[in-house]
Parts: sequence; C-alpha cells; structure tokens
Amino acid sequence: MGFSKENIKGVLLALLSSLFIGASFIIKKKGLRRAAAASGVRAGVGGYSYLLEPLWWLGMITMIVGEAANFIAYAFAPAVLVTPLGALSIIVSAVLAHFILKEKLHKLGVLGCVMCIAGSVIIVIHAPQEYPINSVLQIWNMATQPAFLLYVASVIVLVFILVFHFSPRCGHTDVLVYTGICSLMGSLSVMSVKALGTSLKLTFEGKNQLIYPETWFFMLVVVTCVITQMNYLNKALDSFNTAVVSPIYYVMFTTLTILASVIMFKDWDGESGGSIISEICGFIVVLSGSILLHSTKEFERSSSFRGSSYMPVSPTLSTGLCSTNGESFKHDEENVLLPEEICLRRQESTR
Amino acid sequence: MGFSKENIKGVLLALLSSLFIGASFIIKKKGLRRAAAASGVRAGVGGYSYLLEPLWWLGMITMIVGEAANFIAYAFAPAVLVTPLGALSIIVSAVLAHFILKEKLHKLGVLGCVMCIAGSVIIVIHAPQEYPINSVLQIWNMATQPAFLLYVASVIVLVFILVFHFSPRCGHTDVLVYTGICSLMGSLSVMSVKALGTSLKLTFEGKNQLIYPETWFFMLVVVTCVITQMNYLNKALDSFNTAVVSPIYYVMFTTLTILASVIMFKDWDGESGGSIISEICGFIVVLSGSILLHSTKEFERSSSFRGSSYMPVSPTLSTGLCSTNGESFKHDEENVLLPEEICLRRQESTR
Repeated sequence: MGFSKENIKGVLLALLSSLFIGASFIIKKKGLRRAAAASGVRAGVGGYSYLLEPLWWLGMITMIVGEAANFIAYAFAPAVLVTPLGALSIIVSAVLAHFILKEKLHKLGVLGCVMCIAGSVIIVIHAPQEYPINSVLQIWNMATQPAFLLYVASVIVLVFILVFHFSPRCGHTDVLVYTGICSLMGSLSVMSVKALGTSLKLTFEGKNQLIYPETWFFMLVVVTCVITQMNYLNKALDSFNTAVVSPIYYVMFTTLTILASVIMFKDWDGESGGSIISEICGFIVVLSGSILLHSTKEFERSSSFRGSSYMPVSPTLSTGLCSTNGESFKHDEENVLLPEEICLRRQESTR
Repeated sequence: MGFSKENIKGVLLALLSSLFIGASFIIKKKGLRRAAAASGVRAGVGGYSYLLEPLWWLGMITMIVGEAANFIAYAFAPAVLVTPLGALSIIVSAVLAHFILKEKLHKLGVLGCVMCIAGSVIIVIHAPQEYPINSVLQIWNMATQPAFLLYVASVIVLVFILVFHFSPRCGHTDVLVYTGICSLMGSLSVMSVKALGTSLKLTFEGKNQLIYPETWFFMLVVVTCVITQMNYLNKALDSFNTAVVSPIYYVMFTTLTILASVIMFKDWDGESGGSIISEICGFIVVLSGSILLHSTKEFERSSSFRGSSYMPVSPTLSTGLCSTNGESFKHDEENVLLPEEICLRRQESTR
C-alpha cells in the first residue's frame, strides 16, 4: 500500500483525466444536438455544421486535456493503477448524461456506477509503490530484461498471426480478432507511453533525456503501436456492435496492460499476497460494473440512435475505455466507409 | 489482515454454512416438485405430501446443518467477517438451480455471482484479528461498556417506536417498518449468538461457562431477539414482495450487525484505514452483487410461480440472507394466514 507523493499525483491525474474524458462526450453531444437543431441536418447524415458549434470544440479540447492528463498520470503512477481507473470515465459520462442530457440512468446502471467506484477505491488502496526512476536508461534496462522481451516477442508473434492469418478469414465474424490485436498492441502502447512520459517528466525536471536514443525509440514505439491500435479498433467497431466490443476490449486491454506492467516494472514485487489479490478483485469489480453499465445502456440504445456504430477514438488510446464512452454519442452513418477512410475522416472530424 | 487459526476456522464454517443453506433450498424444491408430481397436488394449494418425500427432509437437514455451521462460525471469527459471507448462499442456490433445476441463470446473474465472490474475497482478506476470549465474563464486560449499552438502548427505543407507533399505521404500506424492526433486532441477535456460541465453545474446551448467569442471560436474549425477528420478517414477507424485502433487509441487517460488532468487539481497533475502507468496499460489492442477482431473478419470477410469497425462514436468522434464497422456492398460498399462524404453521411444515 504505497501512498507516495508521486502515486497521489498519478491517481489525481488519472481521476482528472476520467472526469475530462467523461465530460467531453457530453459536451460534444450537446454541441452536436445544438448544431443539428440549428441546421436541421444531423451530423451522421453528412452535415458538418457541428464544426461551427463552439460547444463541440469545447468538447474536443476537454477530451484532449483529459488524454494529456492520462498520459502524464502514467509518468507518476504505475500502470496497474492508472489503467483500470480509466473505467471511471464511463461513470462520469453516465452521470452527466443523466443530469445534463436528461438520458435516464437505469437502476442497474446506478449499481454499475457504485461498483466501479468501490472497485476503484480498492485498486487505489492497494496500488503498489513505484521504484523511483532517474533516467530513461533504467526503463530501457527494464524493457530489455529477458522476461519482458519474451512478453514483447509473444505479443508480436500473436499480432502477426492475428493480422495475417485470422484477420482476412474471420476478422469480420469473430470479435476476438480485431479486439485481440488492439489489446495486445495496447499493452505495448501503455508501456511505451509510460516510458516516454517518465522521460519527458525527467527532462522537465532538468535531467534531459532527449539526448538518449532510447527516448526516441520509445517515441517511435508509441506512434507505431497507437496507429496500429487505432486502425484495428476502427475495424472492430465497424464490424461489431459497440456494446459487444467495449467490454471485451476493456477486459483484454486492461489484463494485458497489467500483465505487461507487472513483468516490466515488477509492480507486484514486495507486495503482500493479500494486496495483489485485493487488487485483482478490485479490477474484477470495476470490470463487472462497466459491463453492467454497458448492458443497461444497451436497453436504451435501440430507442435513440440506430445504424452502424462509430465512436470517437482519441489519439492515445491509453485508457482503452475512452473510446467506449462514445456509445451514447454515435450517430447514423448512411454511407459505409472503408476503415482506412473512417480513420482519415475521423482525423478531420474526430467523430 | 489477521489470518489466525480461529479466523480460518470461522471462514471455513461460514463458507460451509452458505454451501449447505444454498443447497438446502434446491434439495427442498426438488423434493416439493417430486411430491407434487407424485400426488398431483401442489404444496402451496394445501397438499402436505412433501412431508412423505425423503428429499424434502434431506433439504431440511441440510438447512439445519448450515444454520448450525453459521452459528458456530460466529464463535470463531468476527461478525464483520461471518455476516457478509452469508450472501454466498445466494450464489450457491443460483448456480445449483441452474445445473440441477435447469433454471436458466441470466447473464447479469452470473455477473452478480462474480461480484459476490470478489467482494467476499476482499472482506476475508481484510478481516480483523479477534482478541482471544477466555470467559463469558469478558464478553459481558464488552456488552456492558457504555458505548454498546448506548447502542442497545437506541435499538430498543427505535424498535419500540417502530412496533407501537409506525407498525399499526404504515406497516403494511412502508417496507422499511417491518424490515427495520427485523434488522435492528437482528444485530442484537448476532451479538448474542456470538456471545452464546463463544461460551459454548469455551464450555466444550473444558472451561465451563454454564455456571455463570451471564451465559443464560445471553441465551434469553438470543431467544427473544430471534422470535421477534422471525415474527416481523414473516409480516414483512406477507406484506411485500420478496425481491423488495430481501435486498433492503440484507443491507440494513448487515450494516447494523457490522456497526454493533465494531462497537462491542472493537473489531476495527488497530486496523489500518486502508483495511477498513477495503472491507466496506467489499461489503458494498457483495451487496451490489446480491441486488443484481435478485433483480435478474425478478425477470423470471413472473413466468414460474405466482401468488403471495412465503419463504422458508430458518430459526437463527443469523445469516439474514438465508431467508432470501427462498424466493425461487416459494409456492402459491391460496388462503392468506395471519403472520402468527404462518409462523406456527412454518414451525410444523417449515415452508
């Protein structure tokens, strides 16, 4: 149970990030509604009037701030702590949707929120203490230890098999293929985001890390992983229902991230068995809570927006869940685009 | 985090108790079904053929064994640990109902089970260590400390107000009246059951406690509290739907029992803040899980049995939840009885 100053900063940043990301969806949706009311054309049907709506831009900024906070959080606290807390953004958006958008929150949805909070508290209480890191070279050593290299190698092999063997065959029929690729790459994204974040933090503290090629290597890994992840997340969301993709993605992504972090940063060394089990239980609780929230949203979905479900995908993808919030904000897309086109269009319009 | 030998015994007994109590409902129901198939008359409609069914008696015995195990568990482990674990009997009966009675378990029901288990694990991990007790006089001293006397006095005053003021006025319209009485009395039941159990344990260990009038006083309290509790639980179940009564009763009962135990046995003295918060979160999680399980049962209820809902009430009532399992086993009662009559009839037929 480590409550170092760094850990507290990390937790606060993670909470702030969830708050911003959760709120951003509501603000954007309000913006979209207002734009639709003003122009008479819904965004999904082809209108771009929301780009003239200040509220929509405010939502975008809120989201970027949230993602930045999440990125910085990784520099301060262990991934085992920051990643699962991403689920809290669902609560924020569910609660705000209830009060601001007047979307009725199902009773079981409230239960889901309570569970997410209880689980998060348990995770925070049992979060491991991080070893202080003074140089990117230290992280490099952790990343090149045999155990972690084995993990990276397995991830790469699995991703290749999924991409080249399964993806063309059953990518559009089996939800595990695309979400599997995203989750596997996601665990590497988070590790490299954490390495990069820590390097930048050290640089800001006066210990310039940009002189080391290792920092630039981590940056390259971040970019590669995030692009792959975005690409396949779009494919997954294009082929399957958000309510199906989100919980599966969250479970796999968080589990693999925790696994990667435990191997690389040895988060659980020196932790008592009780703490580790409590943490895992906390994670299971948060997970169950978010499944519950999603399944109650499912009831209402059919009555509001229909059509293929595109959601906002934010650049870092580090929280994994940030994207799942989009569920309640997706809008009809009349013309089906190829995933690549979607990705490009999203870059412009961030829908 | 105390894992003394005594605590482990207590946990195992509590788990065993949930297993037996959970299983007993399934065995009884199978007995009832078989009896109904043999005689063509359903128990609820007035038939007593189930009394000739060995399976039904096996269920009764299983339940008595379970209640006994629960009673003994209180002698070994703190009430803060034993009471919330009672929720596990719902899981046992839900899972067994799925496999043996072929009652389909809803997906969210599975989620509820997972949560109950995760919450219970957290509670067990953070259970406080008990002070060793060598004589009933020690318990007597704990029971007569000013703080606990104040608690007892408040409980008695509240119960009197509920019984004499609210009960005649809105007992049949407000679910909180009867369940409130049960829960308040229940917290005293558990404390006295724990005192009595510990005394008997010591007596069996060779330190005869029956020579002290305090032991007999605790026995008197157990009998008084349990009878009051049973009486008002029957009234509550007679006036309201089981699915409404059960979760409310479980929350109030467990909360008050934990409160009483914390005051009387000072369970949380010397515990770290993190442990206490984790324990509370664990309790919230178990609670949410059982609400979820109950609300999914609700969906199916209407399709199977209808009518006013009587449930088996076991004598100790210490687990609080034991009774709530009855939900899926209740059968039609054509003629409405006065609660007193029900109580008497139940004594005979244990329906």
